[in-house]
This record gives sequence, C-alpha cells and structure tokens, in this order.
Amino acid sequence: MTSDPRRTGALLTIDLAAIAANYRYLAERVAPAECAAVVKADAYGLGADIVAAVLAAAGARTFFVAHLQEGLALRRRLPQARIGIFNGFAADCGEDYVAAALLPVLNHPGEIADWVTLCRQHQKVLPAFLHLDTGMNRLGLTPSELIDLAADPAPFKSIDVQAILSHLACADEGSNPMTAAQAATFRNALARLPRRPASLANSAGIFRGRAYHLDMVRPGIALYGGNPTPEAANPMRHTVRLSSHVIQLRHVDSPQTVGYGATHRFRGKAKIATIPVGYADGYLRALSNRGKVWIAGGPARIVGRVSMDLITVDVSHLADDAAAPGTPVDLIGPQLPVDEVARDAGTVGYEILTGLGPRYARRYVGGDGDPC
Amino acid sequence: MTSDPRRTGALLTIDLAAIAANYRYLAERVAPAECAAVVKADAYGLGADIVAAVLAAAGARTFFVAHLQEGLALRRRLPQARIGIFNGFAADCGEDYVAAALLPVLNHPGEIADWVTLCRQHQKVLPAFLHLDTGMNRLGLTPSELIDLAADPAPFKSIDVQAILSHLACADEGSNPMTAAQAATFRNALARLPRRPASLANSAGIFRGRAYHLDMVRPGIALYGGNPTPEAANPMRHTVRLSSHVIQLRHVDSPQTVGYGATHRFRGKAKIATIPVGYADGYLRALSNRGKVWIAGGPARIVGRVSMDLITVDVSHLADDAAAPGTPVDLIGPQLPVDEVARDAGTVGYEILTGLGPRYARRYVGGDGDPC
Repeated sequence: MTSDPRRTGALLTIDLAAIAANYRYLAERVAPAECAAVVKADAYGLGADIVAAVLAAAGARTFFVAHLQEGLALRRRLPQARIGIFNGFAADCGEDYVAAALLPVLNHPGEIADWVTLCRQHQKVLPAFLHLDTGMNRLGLTPSELIDLAADPAPFKSIDVQAILSHLACADEGSNPMTAAQAATFRNALARLPRRPASLANSAGIFRGRAYHLDMVRPGIALYGGNPTPEAANPMRHTVRLSSHVIQLRHVDSPQTVGYGATHRFRGKAKIATIPVGYADGYLRALSNRGKVWIAGGPARIVGRVSMDLITVDVSHLADDAAAPGTPVDLIGPQLPVDEVARDAGTVGYEILTGLGPRYARRYVGGDGDPC
Repeated sequence: MTSDPRRTGALLTIDLAAIAANYRYLAERVAPAECAAVVKADAYGLGADIVAAVLAAAGARTFFVAHLQEGLALRRRLPQARIGIFNGFAADCGEDYVAAALLPVLNHPGEIADWVTLCRQHQKVLPAFLHLDTGMNRLGLTPSELIDLAADPAPFKSIDVQAILSHLACADEGSNPMTAAQAATFRNALARLPRRPASLANSAGIFRGRAYHLDMVRPGIALYGGNPTPEAANPMRHTVRLSSHVIQLRHVDSPQTVGYGATHRFRGKAKIATIPVGYADGYLRALSNRGKVWIAGGPARIVGRVSMDLITVDVSHLADDAAAPGTPVDLIGPQLPVDEVARDAGTVGYEILTGLGPRYARRYVGGDGDPC
C-alpha cells in the first residue's frame, strides 16, 4: 500500500475517529440493545482489517460479513468477536466455520438441516443466527417454512440460535408502509418460535424508533458516514475524502468536443481541467456529463465521458492559475458527500463506497497513534 | 488469493491462452507495425502481474499503464520491457522514472520542460513518449502548443522521443467522420516535427485499416476479449468467465415484491433464485431489473435491485431441481459476453472488466503449466 498520491492519481483519506464516533453515537442511541457492525465488502470499501479493529475498540462485539472468506479474514484480526456470515453456508465448508468459530446466518431449511448435522458430528450445540424473511424475497425462511419450523422447533435444541434476524427492504423511505408491515410480520413470527434475541434494524431502521431496535441492530452505511435518514440532515460524521489534482489545463473553443464519443460540444471558449481518476477507480462512468468535483473553493462539473483513468471538468469560471497542473481537487469530501456523488451517478452511497478503487493511495487518520 | 468459490460467492476464470492468442492475432494483423499492450488498471481488471508476463511471452515489448505506481509494479515483473506512463509525470517524481527506466508520456509543455531539466540533471538523453492531442481535449499538446514546439524543436535534442502518440475519440463508431479527421490532423502535426515513430490506434483503430497502424498500435480492450468492431461480429476470443451458484430458491406470489425498495412486484406465482454476487463485486447496480444470468442452459433475468452482495433472478420457467441451491450460474461467459453485460448496464465492457471485484476467487487457465 502506497501513501504517495503523486504516483497513484488520488489519495483516499479515511477518518477512523469519525467511524468510531459514528459507532458510539449509534450504540448510545439504541442501548440497551446491542449495536453490531456490518463490515462486509471490505468494510464498505474502507478496509475491513483496520476498520473492524477500530469498531471493536469502540465497543462492537458482533460483526457481520457476507462471505465465508471475509469471515475467515476477519477472525484473524478479531480473535474474540462474534462473527456472522450473512450468505449462509455450504455444507462442505462446515469445518471452516467450526475451526474459525464463525456463525452462519441460516437462510433456509436446507442450511438448518446441514448445520444440525454438523452439530451432531461435533457433538456440540454450535452457534448460528437464524434468518426469517419478511418481504425481501432474497434470503431467509419463507412464511410457510416458518410455519413448518414452528410446528417442529427441534433444531432449536440442536443449534445454539443466538439471534433471529430479519431485514428491512425500504427503511430509508420514511413514508413507506412496508417497514411497519415487515416489523409486524417479524413480531408475529418471533412469537411462534422459541424465544431468542431478535434483530431487525439496519442503519435506516435504527432511526425509525425504539420499536425497531429489539435486542440488536446491524448498522453498516451509517458507520461509514452515509445518511441513514435521507429525508433529513445527516446525523453521521463523514468518514471519507477522495483528493486528486489537476494534471493538465486546456483552453478549448467551439466547435470542439471532449473525451470518448465526443459527447460534450463546447459552445464557446472554455477551460478544461483533466484529473487522473476514472471508472477503473470505481468513479462510475454514469457520472459522465453529470458529476462534479470541488476545486478552488467551489464546484466544477464533469464534461464529457468519464474514461478509464481520467475525468475532464469545466473550469471556465476560474483563472488559469487557480486550475493549473497540481491544483488540488476533491472528488469526495466535506463539500461533496458520498451521498451527493451517488445521487449524481443515479445510485446509492453504498455503491460509491464499495467501488472505491484499489489504485488510490490510502491514508488512515484519527486512529490510535499517528496517521499511517 | 483463494481459489475456492464456495467461500467467496463466485469464481472468476481468466483464460491466459485466449489473451495470448488475441495479442498474436493483433500483432500479425498490424505487422510490420509494432503491437504494444495496454495493461493499465491491473490489465483491465484481469491481473497485470500475470497478464503482462503472458503478453511479454507472446511477443509484446512495449507496455502502457496510466499511473507511475502501476509502472513501478510492472517493472518488477518485466525487467526488459519498454513501459510508458500515459498520465505523464510530476516533476518531483522524476527520480522514480529514471531508477525504474519508465517512459512518461509527455502531455503538455510543462512536462516537456521538466523532463528536459531531468535529462540535464542526469546528463542523459532520457527516453519518453510525446502526446499530441487531435480532439480528445483531455491530455496531449494542443494545436497551438504544437506550433510552438515545431517552431523550436530543441526538446527533441535533449529528450529521446521514442514515439509520438495521439488518441482516437470515436474509433469504435464506424461511421463517425471524427476518426479520419483525427488521423489527418495527426499526420499534419507529425510533418511539422522531427521524424519519430508514430502511434495512433487503440483496439478499434486497428480495425479501421492499415492507414491507422503507423509504427505502433496500442490495443487494450481487444486483448481482453472486448469487441473492437461493435458494428460487426467480435473477432477476439473471450477471456473471462464469471461463475457463481444459487444459494436459495424462493417461491413467491402476487402481490409480493423483491429486494431493496421493492422495485419489482410479482403478478402471479414466480420462482426466485438468489445468487451471492452484488455491486460490491463490481456487478453494477445499474443491472437492477435489467441484467441477466445464464442458468440451466438459458438466460434468466434479474428482478429487483442488485444489492451489495446478492442478486435475485426470475427462474419461474425452470423446474425446482434445475435451480436448487448449488446450481451453477454464469454471470459472464460464453453465452453472456462482457459486452452484452455492459449493454444491459448501459455502459461499456471496459467498465465491467475494470470493476471485476476483489472478492471473487480467481483461477487462471491456459498459461504455461497447470492452472494455478
């Protein structure tokens, strides 16, 4: 990992103090419910190795990832944590789970049966999470599978079901009645099963009120600074800054065009600054002719297509020396939050974060000790 | 790097023999012009360390990357190759270039002046490439900067200009007159400067005919199997297969919905297969309700939103046991080329390739020796 952005085009600065503060804010808000931490997809692109250790130091005891491989890596970093694997498990990987003390989220009767078999083989009541679907139709027991389990809850004797989970589909849409309906469905389902700790809320769910907190919440995006309340101001601290610099300043004039496909045609004299970041860095091509950067104290819009390693921005409003080669540019930062970049790209902040590219120089600040 | 897709959700298979064959096909097509190889962005997502070595073995002698950092890494792998850095250089990194024998692509007069200074400091005529812009308005000397250089070509004495480059904006649009206009502009510019080898064609440019080959061509996407002739059948071999498997099969019925935001509502009975790949893997969220996968010998369309780690596909047309958990699924493959996935996502194959995620298990086949 290099920390010299002159060699890499851009510098990604990740504020570990902000991540820790976000965790503590959520944990205090939901107490006495437990606040788990979702660190799948390399902690939403920010580096699970480092971020998970910071979250553990801030008090997180339970972590969730998507894949077994992510859980195995996290276990090496956090020997004591409770680690759940959202995407369940394949029976032929059972020994991996046992050896690393990982908890699958059991998503369907086949997985429950396989985990029971593993428990018998090990003559242990092995821990796991159980997932009930309440409307995502993606993973988790269906209503009819729930009825079957309620009729014969024998697996609760073979398996140490540490919590029962469900997942909200629309919690970030304040007015959507589906969220309350999912919560009601979940409560009814819980009432039919042996009593276990329950968990429903993602980041947005936390802000729907105490009724959604139950025994454990599972924030992800809010830890990393995404707004869990899109209809109101963001209560979370920003965690990410993506900085680059101008590598060339061009004067152009009508009828010239810029970039691949010549999608932008100038109507008169203009100045174009070229910046060494592109879609190979996860800076989505959907930002072509739509995104913006922050330069010399204000926004400048992207003109032409985002290319693999470069973007071009219109700096006609700036003096030449305010946009000369070497001038700093923010692509994500205090004035350009992740959520706004996502809006320009027609997507969500999650995709911007998880796409943050491997070529960026990375600097972590605000952790214990000096920036590294 | 793991090679067990049960732990990672999916397996990315990269065919090194196909990449080598693509290189040889292009090299023969353009001979006696030189065929360089563009391996920026980690060889378009396929792994520059391994891919560049394969291309060198197939005969490539000149390589291009975007950033200095990529060049430094490539130099460790290829001690003998000529390596050009498209994004130029910052004067304070000059020693890095000299120590690793890297050639900047000099994009503007400031970079030329800085490289001349470096040559003087080292008392050597250091090698570099020179970039003339012919319509991208992104990097490269402008027409007026060219006039200045033609009037005073002294830098050609201080610098070993090994080739003069330009870059086509619309070569993949067969009917676009801009391509011929750029070529004419480039020829006129070359005539004003000291004679040096010239290079204009990217992958698509190669297929515009011999007049575009000049002394060197610089294919990227065609090496990796993207179609350089979008208006005709793809002459290149596919190089990538992305395979996953079903982790859950769901029966749903109207009026249920699927996924985040409940964007897909079922009109009747349906079957949904859930697959453990999502936008955190570079499987773009733009494929929500638009993409497709290949399962049980045919296509199945994505329903609902692509989420971070999962997609859901409609398999109502299949028998239950044809889509049971464990059933193999191709997301990219012989029947679903990269370019088709890109079309569904509203983007280009380049973005699909460079986005291929770090979580996939990777297997290289067709290289020297056994698959690794």
